[in-house]
Amino acid sequence: MPRYKFTIEYDGKGYVGWQRQDNGISIQQTIEEAIESFCQEKPALYVAGRTDAGVHALGQVAHCDLENQFPAYKIRDAVNFYLRKKNIIILDVEEVDDNFNARTSARKRIYLYRILNRRAPPAIRKGKVWHIGPELDIKAMKKGAKHLLGKHDFSSFRASLCQAKSPIKTLDILDIKTKDDEIHITAEARSFLHHMVRNMVGTLHHVGVGKMQPDDVKTILKAKDRTAAGPTAPAHGLYLVRVEY
Amino acid sequence: MPRYKFTIEYDGKGYVGWQRQDNGISIQQTIEEAIESFCQEKPALYVAGRTDAGVHALGQVAHCDLENQFPAYKIRDAVNFYLRKKNIIILDVEEVDDNFNARTSARKRIYLYRILNRRAPPAIRKGKVWHIGPELDIKAMKKGAKHLLGKHDFSSFRASLCQAKSPIKTLDILDIKTKDDEIHITAEARSFLHHMVRNMVGTLHHVGVGKMQPDDVKTILKAKDRTAAGPTAPAHGLYLVRVEY
Repeated sequence: MPRYKFTIEYDGKGYVGWQRQDNGISIQQTIEEAIESFCQEKPALYVAGRTDAGVHALGQVAHCDLENQFPAYKIRDAVNFYLRKKNIIILDVEEVDDNFNARTSARKRIYLYRILNRRAPPAIRKGKVWHIGPELDIKAMKKGAKHLLGKHDFSSFRASLCQAKSPIKTLDILDIKTKDDEIHITAEARSFLHHMVRNMVGTLHHVGVGKMQPDDVKTILKAKDRTAAGPTAPAHGLYLVRVEY
Repeated sequence: MPRYKFTIEYDGKGYVGWQRQDNGISIQQTIEEAIESFCQEKPALYVAGRTDAGVHALGQVAHCDLENQFPAYKIRDAVNFYLRKKNIIILDVEEVDDNFNARTSARKRIYLYRILNRRAPPAIRKGKVWHIGPELDIKAMKKGAKHLLGKHDFSSFRASLCQAKSPIKTLDILDIKTKDDEIHITAEARSFLHHMVRNMVGTLHHVGVGKMQPDDVKTILKAKDRTAAGPTAPAHGLYLVRVEY
């Protein structure tokens, strides 16, 4: 059976997240049904990053096997036709080897967190950024972020529902920069724990408003205790940017 | 009576445009009602750019007189409270001189037109960009745009409903650049004719896809005839970026 790799953009608003769930419509279900409408097969999509409810993707990756062979561009255009009323778009479809697996073959996942840092809430970017009114101390946030780089036990930044076998992850990049009236936090790692990026952003927010000192991040990390860190930042500021293989 | 200058951001979707009209809700009416809710006065807003239905603003400017004096920040925060369920936000309020007029004092208006130039339609940026699938020839578009710079009779790019006394305008900047998967066209002038930016973009689009040659833009300009130019580009790609005084 031919295997296809899908690169996907979506607005997470209104979905229960990537994964099929009983309490609402998932991204996975929506795309699987669009594929079924196109080829009358019932494919199962395997995904690189199971984004939570409300989280967006600029370059999510998933794969599935189909019984019949189609030109990749035809799958892309046909599936997009069935998705045309949804805020989900297939950017690219590629036929790949049998040993390609969207989840386990991924070498790097890149996330972006967008903070709108100005007094006025967003009008045009509503639901696309986390609005924080008070001016954030970026220098302090950058200093705090440095403690998180590298290989650590990230238990303090792990959701209680996290299914990962080990809390140990290697964070390759945690970059903070201003872009007009936004602050962009980019995180890169082979893989992340559940809520890890949003928990890191929530903690750096506390550093940015002066509730915590940059060096507190080191103490929090060492505590290996979720209650030591800041709250989880909202889902709608988070984007899965791309997955590298 | 004290006069106040409002700087405003809005998503044009769902509004009939800036100006009050019988066929739907306008931006003007929405803000005027929010001001009334705050101070029980019935102010009239005068605006720098009467944006059409669906056009967005990042920095629209309007002024009004109020009978009572308030600290500017108080007006901003109170009006934003009444606008909290709308996609309209007051970025700034400033008390200004009696001789300030948002429309007639404006020295420069800056518009941005965003084109998403990729095969796949937008998911996250739906309604925020004009989607054009075929790759545009930016070099040709830039060449064509040069003919529009400076002082000209812009009748070929003027909507039939335009109320301006003269079709002669001076276009200071018409800049085209790529930004990731978007093409950004920036236009600056003291003032524009009705639909002028969208008609220029619609014509440059024809140049970009090869339907017209760059030098045709010169011929179109000389024709002083709206039917000579390309169609009007869609409203939802256009942003009033800021107004300078």
